[in-house]
Amino acid sequence: MTDALETAIQKARGGRSARRGARTGQHAITQMPWKIPVNLDRPTEPLTAEGVEMIHDGAMRVLEEIGIDFLHEEARKILKEAGCEVDGVRVRMGRKWVMEQVRRAPSKFTITPRNREHEITIGGDHMVFGNVSSPPNSSNLDRGKRPGTRADYQDLIKLTQYFNCIHLAGGYPVEPQDVHASVRHLDCLFDMLTLTDKVCHAYSLGKERVDDVMEMVRIAGGLTHEDFAAKPRMYTNINSSSPLKHDTPMLDGAMRLARKGQPTIVTPFTLAGAMAPVTLAGAIVQQTAEALACIALLQVITPGLPVVYGSFTSNVDMKTGAPAFGTPEYMRATQMSGQMARYYGLPLRASNACACAVPDAQASWESSFSLWACVSAHTNVVYHAAGWLEGGLCASYEKFVMDCETLQQVQHYLQPIPMATDDIAVDAIKETGPHGHFFGGAHTQSRYTTAFYAPFLSDWRGYEAWTEAGAEGTPQRANKIWKQILSEYEAPPMDAAITEELEAFVARRKEEGGAPTDF
Amino acid sequence: MTDALETAIQKARGGRSARRGARTGQHAITQMPWKIPVNLDRPTEPLTAEGVEMIHDGAMRVLEEIGIDFLHEEARKILKEAGCEVDGVRVRMGRKWVMEQVRRAPSKFTITPRNREHEITIGGDHMVFGNVSSPPNSSNLDRGKRPGTRADYQDLIKLTQYFNCIHLAGGYPVEPQDVHASVRHLDCLFDMLTLTDKVCHAYSLGKERVDDVMEMVRIAGGLTHEDFAAKPRMYTNINSSSPLKHDTPMLDGAMRLARKGQPTIVTPFTLAGAMAPVTLAGAIVQQTAEALACIALLQVITPGLPVVYGSFTSNVDMKTGAPAFGTPEYMRATQMSGQMARYYGLPLRASNACACAVPDAQASWESSFSLWACVSAHTNVVYHAAGWLEGGLCASYEKFVMDCETLQQVQHYLQPIPMATDDIAVDAIKETGPHGHFFGGAHTQSRYTTAFYAPFLSDWRGYEAWTEAGAEGTPQRANKIWKQILSEYEAPPMDAAITEELEAFVARRKEEGGAPTDF
Repeated sequence: MTDALETAIQKARGGRSARRGARTGQHAITQMPWKIPVNLDRPTEPLTAEGVEMIHDGAMRVLEEIGIDFLHEEARKILKEAGCEVDGVRVRMGRKWVMEQVRRAPSKFTITPRNREHEITIGGDHMVFGNVSSPPNSSNLDRGKRPGTRADYQDLIKLTQYFNCIHLAGGYPVEPQDVHASVRHLDCLFDMLTLTDKVCHAYSLGKERVDDVMEMVRIAGGLTHEDFAAKPRMYTNINSSSPLKHDTPMLDGAMRLARKGQPTIVTPFTLAGAMAPVTLAGAIVQQTAEALACIALLQVITPGLPVVYGSFTSNVDMKTGAPAFGTPEYMRATQMSGQMARYYGLPLRASNACACAVPDAQASWESSFSLWACVSAHTNVVYHAAGWLEGGLCASYEKFVMDCETLQQVQHYLQPIPMATDDIAVDAIKETGPHGHFFGGAHTQSRYTTAFYAPFLSDWRGYEAWTEAGAEGTPQRANKIWKQILSEYEAPPMDAAITEELEAFVARRKEEGGAPTDF
Repeated sequence: MTDALETAIQKARGGRSARRGARTGQHAITQMPWKIPVNLDRPTEPLTAEGVEMIHDGAMRVLEEIGIDFLHEEARKILKEAGCEVDGVRVRMGRKWVMEQVRRAPSKFTITPRNREHEITIGGDHMVFGNVSSPPNSSNLDRGKRPGTRADYQDLIKLTQYFNCIHLAGGYPVEPQDVHASVRHLDCLFDMLTLTDKVCHAYSLGKERVDDVMEMVRIAGGLTHEDFAAKPRMYTNINSSSPLKHDTPMLDGAMRLARKGQPTIVTPFTLAGAMAPVTLAGAIVQQTAEALACIALLQVITPGLPVVYGSFTSNVDMKTGAPAFGTPEYMRATQMSGQMARYYGLPLRASNACACAVPDAQASWESSFSLWACVSAHTNVVYHAAGWLEGGLCASYEKFVMDCETLQQVQHYLQPIPMATDDIAVDAIKETGPHGHFFGGAHTQSRYTTAFYAPFLSDWRGYEAWTEAGAEGTPQRANKIWKQILSEYEAPPMDAAITEELEAFVARRKEEGGAPTDF
């Protein structure tokens, strides 16, 4: 490199970090700004139009001929009154009626958290990323894997707040098993609402929990009850108990949220070969039937309610029955789900999942395959986007940081490619000629600080330089980064009166005993 | 799991391995059969039709207004006679003339190696994978990184032969630096032609090497000179010396092959920000101009010659000037190149590349991003598909195995999804009902041995089971696999008379001094 070039590069580096640092007030890494990615690529569509119709017809036949078990008396009552055929817990619904209900749901909506700047759009071409949800354990390189604690939970919520590429909080990024289940939701939501100002999630685990969380989100947002219910402020994600069942607490939570205009992601748990047919087509038929059955119910309760069609279909390891993720089957199932979601005019949820137990190369290709499946399927909500490990049994601190690196790359990838006349660069090519180098040219100088995505985690040095610098592998570098982030972490501002009100609410509800634990 | 299920699974596993083992005679792993993947997905196209025209116009302006340096006297003479404007070493060509030449090239062709069953199709919807090419070093977990030797070269060629998902040999998978450059091509091609029976490559490094390799491929195939020249039997890949130059040895080699009807992949070395404009559009303009200039020359020499438009455009690390791979820029550049290749009716070559120095998580996401860029761009030839590490400075044995795992997954992903009536599985769903499990059903039983892709490298066990089993990371498992493969390796059959003829040719050419080393 020439001296002039080196100087220019140093200047550019200083300029970039200084500018980004000033903008974000953050120092652990230079990260991309908050932005909801917009995916303008054509989706990858493995199904023909006829294939989509075949899956739709299959799903409708399941709803008409087999039916879905709704383990919730009121739900069955509502469905019966709406014209469905109820036989014990089994509910059968005609395709015309189902489609009438489903068509009421919007294809795009917003959720507004307490920080209005972190409002997210779900649906259309928008793509949002949420942290890993619900692992019972967490791990990091310092102390290995252990059952989740509240301290771990708080750490991971802080990472959720820190990374601009994480747009919403999912379920608990780890289950804090040291907090009693009766009051866990109170402590967890207090932490979630004070340590982040991003969109929050409520578990649908009994009416007390759901009502408590809605109330806490309302308080945190400084909202009247009317304002809270006026538009989506939070959401829940429910899973069917595949095959063909919607459980009591899940239905109950979704129905409670629906009555207050809050959205539900309906995600059937259709692992092909286990809880769903071994064929991808069959698994998507069942996923679609289970999802639409619940979505139809919610539309009866609140016509026009924002909902999301959730896809979790993957295959299982036929050797062990364990779920596999990031597989070719997972990719195709996600893309097929995207086609079905668009057919019904619903937003799509999928996941950034892997099966590997440690954050090494296998976890990385599995997650990368999942992530590109999400992009190519036009997924609107990528659940478990950061931190997922071991088939969802463990939240990894290092994996969280690694995933945010790849999420940022997706965000950058989705930005439009500059195509102005000057970007075509014939003049720059002429100026440089066959004996020159583009580093030093004016065309490069005016662009190179922002032309390329700058990773915060990747090490692009050669082997010898990398070895001399300590031979730190990707997880080791990620380990340093999360520690630095946590050491610098500052909670987003919250009005002292609101904090007090939240604290008082938590204290009162704890005194009242919290929520039943027999769900 | 039920006993019946376990038995069924064991039976299925045994059945599958036994069957595959019998078919392939291989035991280290159960791998997918030889098959050229066909990519029926719609490509991802970041450029609008207008954008494609802008890049085309830019490339034509480069060829018309700036020109390309052809550092080969005969090439300039041919181009001048064909109507181009020659000024010193600079050649300018009109767009009408260039397009007339380019349109002569086929959009699809075959290359037939000595084993006719390993014939490959290049172009159309076909996708073939070649091993890593040309690293000066190789590494494995046992002895680390070292300058390439002939023994390492032979090991990697054996892996190229072993894996059914590797369809062609690229350049040397590592440079055997312990063989003198004057005779290296003789030893290397002898090894390549005896240790594999897949499509071979010749380096374009002076007339002696190219002529020797063509002659050796002819001998190995048991072909007359006429038969050899009758259709593609081998190929070369040349790089322009970007910006805007085609060097003497590269042009000379491509022209020699062209005269015998053998194809050339023309791959400009257009790293954005270094040897090409910092804008992706500008880099693709330059890549296109450089590629088409050489392709036009080859079409003048041999009208209708099979050629490939090669894309290597990526960005550089603006901190160090080092090339970066598997980046968002690399992905978009590859997809844009796919659009340009289709615009010109030419097959596309790209690469499965990464920048990381070790086969850990970063290498894995970079390679995965590259690989999905290749798929989404509709790449026809994926060069460096297995074994590439450290920006191409090192061939990793373990990475080779890891890459073959992901290549197999891509191959499986590209298979059509079964969509017969029975795959829709409404009857299976009815039979299983809400209280059953699909594992045991007839619909599953009749399909589950082949329903899902079975990885040979992935470990899907939970953390505890994985730890108890020795806590072997992905590279450690890959290490065991390549050792097992090499210990079981058997060379493909070759007629003894042909081996003798090859040996005699090598001996004679060594006596004659091999090839000059002043290229």
